Amino acid sequence: MKSLMKEKLKIVKIGGNVINDPAYLQVFLQDFARLEGLKILVHGGGKKATELSESLGIKTKMINGRRITDEAGLDVVTMVYAGLLNKKIVAGLQKYNCDAVGLSGADGNSIKAHKREVKEVDYGFAGDVDEVSDQMILTLINAGFSPVFCAITHDKKGQLLNTNADTIASELAKALSSKFQVELVYCFEKDGVLTELDDDSSIIEFIDKEVYAELLSKGLIAGGMLPKLSNCFDALEHGVSRVLIGRPELIRETSRKHTLMTL
Amino acid sequence: MKSLMKEKLKIVKIGGNVINDPAYLQVFLQDFARLEGLKILVHGGGKKATELSESLGIKTKMINGRRITDEAGLDVVTMVYAGLLNKKIVAGLQKYNCDAVGLSGADGNSIKAHKREVKEVDYGFAGDVDEVSDQMILTLINAGFSPVFCAITHDKKGQLLNTNADTIASELAKALSSKFQVELVYCFEKDGVLTELDDDSSIIEFIDKEVYAELLSKGLIAGGMLPKLSNCFDALEHGVSRVLIGRPELIRETSRKHTLMTL
Repeated sequence: MKSLMKEKLKIVKIGGNVINDPAYLQVFLQDFARLEGLKILVHGGGKKATELSESLGIKTKMINGRRITDEAGLDVVTMVYAGLLNKKIVAGLQKYNCDAVGLSGADGNSIKAHKREVKEVDYGFAGDVDEVSDQMILTLINAGFSPVFCAITHDKKGQLLNTNADTIASELAKALSSKFQVELVYCFEKDGVLTELDDDSSIIEFIDKEVYAELLSKGLIAGGMLPKLSNCFDALEHGVSRVLIGRPELIRETSRKHTLMTL
Repeated sequence: MKSLMKEKLKIVKIGGNVINDPAYLQVFLQDFARLEGLKILVHGGGKKATELSESLGIKTKMINGRRITDEAGLDVVTMVYAGLLNKKIVAGLQKYNCDAVGLSGADGNSIKAHKREVKEVDYGFAGDVDEVSDQMILTLINAGFSPVFCAITHDKKGQLLNTNADTIASELAKALSSKFQVELVYCFEKDGVLTELDDDSSIIEFIDKEVYAELLSKGLIAGGMLPKLSNCFDALEHGVSRVLIGRPELIRETSRKHTLMTL
């Protein structure tokens, strides 16, 4: 029966709290390099894009917590996410003997998106994902490489687009779950999903659909966490085997407190 | 005997004159996309890095025509070369159905370099190439992808480095010539190697070692061209089958005037 079992694949997403702190990032990269088995890293942007925009006199517009990406802003995130951060992360992983390959969704046409439709808000060059093509990703991971994705996609018509990194991670996880047993790990600045934002002891260690419905009905999940959790259930419903949410150390210390989500 | 013949591989290098002109770049990308067979694109930086440095108040220091790369300058070239330019080129090629994958020398540990030794001049984070590892490149081209390299390398100790794009192209060509019949094409703003810089009719259409020695003894090659030609002969002596030098249109119109170099 063993030959019928899918191989395990870990997809780990890190955000600003790791990326903004060079020493913390080094520790994380060493941990990620040591992870056994097939793995993909997805990274967000951190504060560097905002800093570069400010240095260049480009104003960062935000609506409903989302960055509005005009043309100058798209150049900035492409430079910072696909250039500076992606290549620093890859060079860091190579140092620890993890054979990383840094990628955007344009590379190998791996993540095709479309410019978000203008309704009440014009988000500019924000990309909503249409399709993940797994050919390049499979080619690389089957040859022993670890893809490192930044949150830049394209529309296959020559236009780069800025896409949310959480979404990149869940779309990759969904697409690859037909071939692998995928575990999706979201690393952020808390121990896991909390009912009280400033109290790590309020962690919810296990969430399935039933628990989720109860948490929702009691209004126990903070606003910012709602799209993240809905994203996670979407991934689980599309074949991802489980989702883990917690601090980056979670990938090293599996005993560490975290939130585990399954269907 | 056919099975003993190596497959052809074209390595094309473009520089600032293509990259600085968006319309010209589109035409070139369409031509490159249409090239039959295995191919790799290497791109230089153009003026965008200098512009970004100026916007950020970073002074670009040049010694002997080479950029001195301090830490802020390295961040700038990493952002511009590996981020903005590399991903715009990849997205452009994808538009024309060329399945491009954008890379730096850190990716897949493909081009390992060391920080240039400080002698009379401290070039900062300039990288001199030690070794090309072909594993990732072979994995990608054998699966039908076209690698697109920017001129950023790493030292395998976590440090990114700024490397001359002509050198990247010739080092890739040398390393891959054990597996492929490699043709190296340098595209620039002239018809080919000229004896009089402003006169396209002074083109030297064929250069081998004998012609080269004669040109050198007569002092017929302009100063800026000397390192380029010495680079080309180095490539030819390490197994590259031929080198072509000329305008970017040369990859489309093979009848177009150009300089052909062989041993």
